[in-house]
Amino acid sequence: MPNTNLNIKDIPGGICAAQGFIAGGIKCGIKNPESPKLDLAIIYSTIPSHGAAMFTQNAVRAAPVRLSEAWIKRTPPRAVVVNSGNANACTGCRGMDDARKMADLTAKALKIKRMEVMVCSTGIIGQAMPMSRIEPRIPELVEKLHAGGGDEAAAAIMTSDTRPKITSVEIDIEGVPVRIGGIAKGAGMIHPNMATMLAFVTTDANISPTELRAATKEAVSRSFNRISVDGDTSTNDTAIVLANGAAGNVRISRGSEHSRLFREALTTVMLRLGKMIVGDGERITRLVEVVVRGARSQSDAERAARAVGNSLLVKSSWNGGDPNWGRILHAVGYSGAHLREEQVDIFIDGLCAARQGLASATPYEKLAKVVANREFTVTIDLNLGSGTFNLYTSDLSPEYVDFNRTEYSAKNKK
Amino acid sequence: MPNTNLNIKDIPGGICAAQGFIAGGIKCGIKNPESPKLDLAIIYSTIPSHGAAMFTQNAVRAAPVRLSEAWIKRTPPRAVVVNSGNANACTGCRGMDDARKMADLTAKALKIKRMEVMVCSTGIIGQAMPMSRIEPRIPELVEKLHAGGGDEAAAAIMTSDTRPKITSVEIDIEGVPVRIGGIAKGAGMIHPNMATMLAFVTTDANISPTELRAATKEAVSRSFNRISVDGDTSTNDTAIVLANGAAGNVRISRGSEHSRLFREALTTVMLRLGKMIVGDGERITRLVEVVVRGARSQSDAERAARAVGNSLLVKSSWNGGDPNWGRILHAVGYSGAHLREEQVDIFIDGLCAARQGLASATPYEKLAKVVANREFTVTIDLNLGSGTFNLYTSDLSPEYVDFNRTEYSAKNKK
Repeated sequence: MPNTNLNIKDIPGGICAAQGFIAGGIKCGIKNPESPKLDLAIIYSTIPSHGAAMFTQNAVRAAPVRLSEAWIKRTPPRAVVVNSGNANACTGCRGMDDARKMADLTAKALKIKRMEVMVCSTGIIGQAMPMSRIEPRIPELVEKLHAGGGDEAAAAIMTSDTRPKITSVEIDIEGVPVRIGGIAKGAGMIHPNMATMLAFVTTDANISPTELRAATKEAVSRSFNRISVDGDTSTNDTAIVLANGAAGNVRISRGSEHSRLFREALTTVMLRLGKMIVGDGERITRLVEVVVRGARSQSDAERAARAVGNSLLVKSSWNGGDPNWGRILHAVGYSGAHLREEQVDIFIDGLCAARQGLASATPYEKLAKVVANREFTVTIDLNLGSGTFNLYTSDLSPEYVDFNRTEYSAKNKK
Repeated sequence: MPNTNLNIKDIPGGICAAQGFIAGGIKCGIKNPESPKLDLAIIYSTIPSHGAAMFTQNAVRAAPVRLSEAWIKRTPPRAVVVNSGNANACTGCRGMDDARKMADLTAKALKIKRMEVMVCSTGIIGQAMPMSRIEPRIPELVEKLHAGGGDEAAAAIMTSDTRPKITSVEIDIEGVPVRIGGIAKGAGMIHPNMATMLAFVTTDANISPTELRAATKEAVSRSFNRISVDGDTSTNDTAIVLANGAAGNVRISRGSEHSRLFREALTTVMLRLGKMIVGDGERITRLVEVVVRGARSQSDAERAARAVGNSLLVKSSWNGGDPNWGRILHAVGYSGAHLREEQVDIFIDGLCAARQGLASATPYEKLAKVVANREFTVTIDLNLGSGTFNLYTSDLSPEYVDFNRTEYSAKNKK
């Protein structure tokens, strides 16, 4: 959990809250030429910047992931071009060519080097990118980039999201305000190790590249890697942080006194985006924090939390507002975590549901009332050690399944 | 796969096909006193027998599992008493007392030792057994046991199953017919390592205890451990095989020439029951065999098959009759199995859906037609080695989720 004692202030502006960043979104009709939806976004630092990124751990990697991952190792990034509606995954050489072309066109219009452009895509897998609809719009979008364009960019990266995900904060470093803003898209397929999730964070912090990389890694592991909607990890997940130093603060370097504050603020931004993603999972009705404590080790705690957070039966019961603690215990049981059944306590929002592996005295009605809420916390205490882990997850609704039944057919049926 | 060249003949009779076994089922109203459903079964060998069993790997173990597992190590079993409607899991000392009482009453009525009785329960977790409704019915049920009672027993062990699962086969050992019959219950929560699944197999084979244990272990790993409906493993899973030697065949011992035939026949019985369980999963509409081949190792193949067979998104797409091979590849990608994306081929019932990681030339309509069937096979060839694994799984329907939303509330709401 981010340390809330630190002074992290909410500010408006999203990715354009950080000075020197402009952005925009436009409609190309990538998924459907008739749709009014924005589907192409660009984020750009008007002054030189550098960056850090985390990519999917799926062995099947989309073309833009391969490209961006290779380029960021060699060149500090300054822009991001993102499309929704097509993942450009499982698309072979043609997909690599298309991703490269997106970078080329963006770089040309921005008058920067192509390797300074990160490329991201999200949407259906295994379909060629409709480049003829994208190519002509890139120069047009670059023309339109502006300091109020963060919301357009947030809208353009959405797929099945029902609302844009935007946040920004400010910290004070020796009297100098430093801003961090982010946008993200998620919905469905949200899982550990980052799944169909794109997140873009900008900061005007003056920070060393080494510290930015370390801070990004830590923040991702404390935020996006602790959210789960359906247990699937995607071919396209990417989190990119761009930093341009426009704030003019004293440089934040690894181990410096300000690095803790910066990391907490970055984690706050990412965790907020992560919780927005879970809360907006496809057709979900509950946002649940699963906390495991008292485990023999942290990895045991993580294992148990993930088993609970990914159990179809547990998630179905939450959807029904059903305080079925037996299913929770049963998921912990098969998680592989060490446990002694007769030592396990389960709490729902602080109400004891099971004590020492048995039904507690808490009346059913009280438990049911808590599980009827849109948000609650399930705490599982294994009472064995000091390992803890927390995971943000959701329920599973009949509508989720219904929603995910025919994506491929919808695209391919004539 | 069982070797179909061996001579394994279908016969009627289920668990009473094997000579010397009688069975029966009765209604106690365990879950609901008004329900007409049978919910208590007994299987009994009229002559001394021995047995082998496999129990759930869940760290949370129901009382009857703990009891039966301890007893079978010390005493050859001769009877099984099973109830549905209550799992007697997460019930503490009271649960152990209740399980012991069920064995005591059964043993007394059958005039055998209590440790000769295996106890099994299935149903809701965390509720005390309604012993007052069960106790008086055990002697009554014992009275009624008969050689035609296998079907009653099969009906009495059902929970959300829509139909009983019964099969029996005969093999010939040096001119002597030997029979193996089985019943099972499943539906929902069916997963590797045996989940909310009970299976009871009887055989009149003359077989050594050592060979029976080895054969049971092998058959379970080739059948029940290769089925999956929803990825959850249960607190109560049990497979028990009883053998009484009534056939009078030459003794089957470990490594003897007849052991291969017996193992294949036992696997056939268990695999048939397993496929019936998957095919009768809660509200499922597709029975899918996932075959992974060409993996670097068998464990890689298993990992990939389980990731595909347990992916919510893959299962949802099958429910929609959607040949979404991209989601299949993507699940293989996060399975942890070694792969080179550009070498992966995917077939659906022999039709190529993806070749070398890319969409194949097979028209969408052809693929959709195959996925519209109730049964089909998805073959994933990693083209890296010789590791193979096959898994029987199902789709995931909105109705499954709906069905699983309120079990606990239904039981607890007033």
